Amino acid sequence: MSKVKVAINGYGTIGKRVADAVSLQDDMEIVGVSKTRPNFEASIAVDKGYAVYAPAEKVDSMKKGGISAAGTVEDMVESADIVVDCTPGGIGEKNKPLYEKAGVKAIWQGGEDHELAGVSFNASANYEEALGEDFVRVVSCNTTGLSRVIYPVDQEYGVKKVRVTLMRRAADPNDVKKGPINAIVPNPITLPSHHGPDIKTVMPHIDIATTAVKLPTTLMHVHTVNMELEKDCSTDDVKELFEKQSRIMLIEKGIGSTAEIMELGRDLGRPRGDMWENCVWKDSVTMYEGELYFFQGIHQESIVIPDNVDAIRAMMELESDGAKSIAKTNKTMGI
Amino acid sequence: MSKVKVAINGYGTIGKRVADAVSLQDDMEIVGVSKTRPNFEASIAVDKGYAVYAPAEKVDSMKKGGISAAGTVEDMVESADIVVDCTPGGIGEKNKPLYEKAGVKAIWQGGEDHELAGVSFNASANYEEALGEDFVRVVSCNTTGLSRVIYPVDQEYGVKKVRVTLMRRAADPNDVKKGPINAIVPNPITLPSHHGPDIKTVMPHIDIATTAVKLPTTLMHVHTVNMELEKDCSTDDVKELFEKQSRIMLIEKGIGSTAEIMELGRDLGRPRGDMWENCVWKDSVTMYEGELYFFQGIHQESIVIPDNVDAIRAMMELESDGAKSIAKTNKTMGI
Repeated sequence: MSKVKVAINGYGTIGKRVADAVSLQDDMEIVGVSKTRPNFEASIAVDKGYAVYAPAEKVDSMKKGGISAAGTVEDMVESADIVVDCTPGGIGEKNKPLYEKAGVKAIWQGGEDHELAGVSFNASANYEEALGEDFVRVVSCNTTGLSRVIYPVDQEYGVKKVRVTLMRRAADPNDVKKGPINAIVPNPITLPSHHGPDIKTVMPHIDIATTAVKLPTTLMHVHTVNMELEKDCSTDDVKELFEKQSRIMLIEKGIGSTAEIMELGRDLGRPRGDMWENCVWKDSVTMYEGELYFFQGIHQESIVIPDNVDAIRAMMELESDGAKSIAKTNKTMGI
Repeated sequence: MSKVKVAINGYGTIGKRVADAVSLQDDMEIVGVSKTRPNFEASIAVDKGYAVYAPAEKVDSMKKGGISAAGTVEDMVESADIVVDCTPGGIGEKNKPLYEKAGVKAIWQGGEDHELAGVSFNASANYEEALGEDFVRVVSCNTTGLSRVIYPVDQEYGVKKVRVTLMRRAADPNDVKKGPINAIVPNPITLPSHHGPDIKTVMPHIDIATTAVKLPTTLMHVHTVNMELEKDCSTDDVKELFEKQSRIMLIEKGIGSTAEIMELGRDLGRPRGDMWENCVWKDSVTMYEGELYFFQGIHQESIVIPDNVDAIRAMMELESDGAKSIAKTNKTMGI
């Protein structure tokens, strides 16, 4: 069987990770990645053996910077079966005509609106909705993290209402331009935040209210999650349920902060120190006065990566069973 | 009428502010403040005209450091009608025998246990409980901030349940020893946190669940507050209710973060830039699906100061009506 040809449009924080994860699969391969600037990431892409493409108007400046483009982004798209668009939020939308013209399938990230793709995807919650689809949006890191915990709890106990405070890292570790460096920023100030409705693009029946702040940290988001459930259950029931989920890691053994979770990722030898799983603090999982509470850490740079791989598999109909795709992706990535 | 004689045991972040606030009142005066080290704060206390006392074993080292103590802490306590103990959490407890021996009243801060004093105090919520009492504990900054919003909402609409995420500044601005500098620290990891039960020391009938994290910021705490209410009300009803509370400030006009609130405090000419009020973001106040949500900023260094002044007035029976004490304290401090 020939491998599915995958192009990565936008080789940044998410794009470079998706490229590496796709390369680990036996049913898909990277045919090219696109960059707009000849920076260290472009050099490393070349060193890794990826064909680096550039927008037509950037081919010259890339060459001056020492990167000989394999062709234009249009060339790359033409050579692919499916494009994973990892351009910055709002830019991806503008690329849709390009993909339509070339007749290729496309995946966008959570920075784009649901309506652009029509299907919002989380591998654990709604794999089957992406089967054979041409356009799919893999939801954001926060929505991915919430989907992975809400879905199994809803399946097992029924979710009556979810309330979440999203404490967001304000900038990624490599981003030296953004703040704050010493403040808490309610964002948005008007409540509830847009994160709740985004969950409904994956699971429309979930009743959820979210509030969000930006914080002076770069490592991970942290969610405080509160759920009212339909059925009775115990703290241990929920811990056992989470333990069974392959993309939830229960955090214990003295790990008390997001910094220590990131150190765990490095000590585990993960590429770039990534933590692809929801990191749920085991001791925080508590049924209190009939309601579920817990803390989880979300590694914003990497949590959506396995879901991007699964989305490719669903859209290309390489695998009709979500559980099997998840198992395959997990095994290859080391989850 | 002679003024009530107030001693401040522990002239640090809280103690120096209480001393200044007491000095503004016409019914009480500072008879002394205590320091253990001859640092810049001790020098400024002397410059301000406060009699600076020291523990007997520290009198010599204070003198070597250029501060001639007016006497020992025991001397200071003997000269007072009431002591405001602003020593670090856990230390205040050890001073109780000293106050009992001298036959003086004492106020402790929120770092001590409720049981030490027997009465936990917030001027807005339970002024009358401190009337004539010998020992009172002014609750912590977080509990003060929550009491001030829960009490009026409970009076007006009945509070069925409160859920709060406390996002705590990890260290005060002058504290260079504590972290984290780049992490989110769930603290405590086990849920719910101790903050909920602390509210019950002021308002025992309130059903509340709290979660808390420590953050890499020094300026203020931020609470996301969710309340289920007994009676129907609108977003505007709650905004109007909060507007009527003299120790709640509705934050608007482009103030989007704790950093900008602190800048407001400085621009208002407040001593040390303090914000003694709960800082509730006006646009965040929302009734959503029948539940109340809002964000509030809590200036941990100063929010309890007016309540300490009111506690003195209640314990010394200078004023039996809490509203009148609050009005007097507010007027003198400029709230």
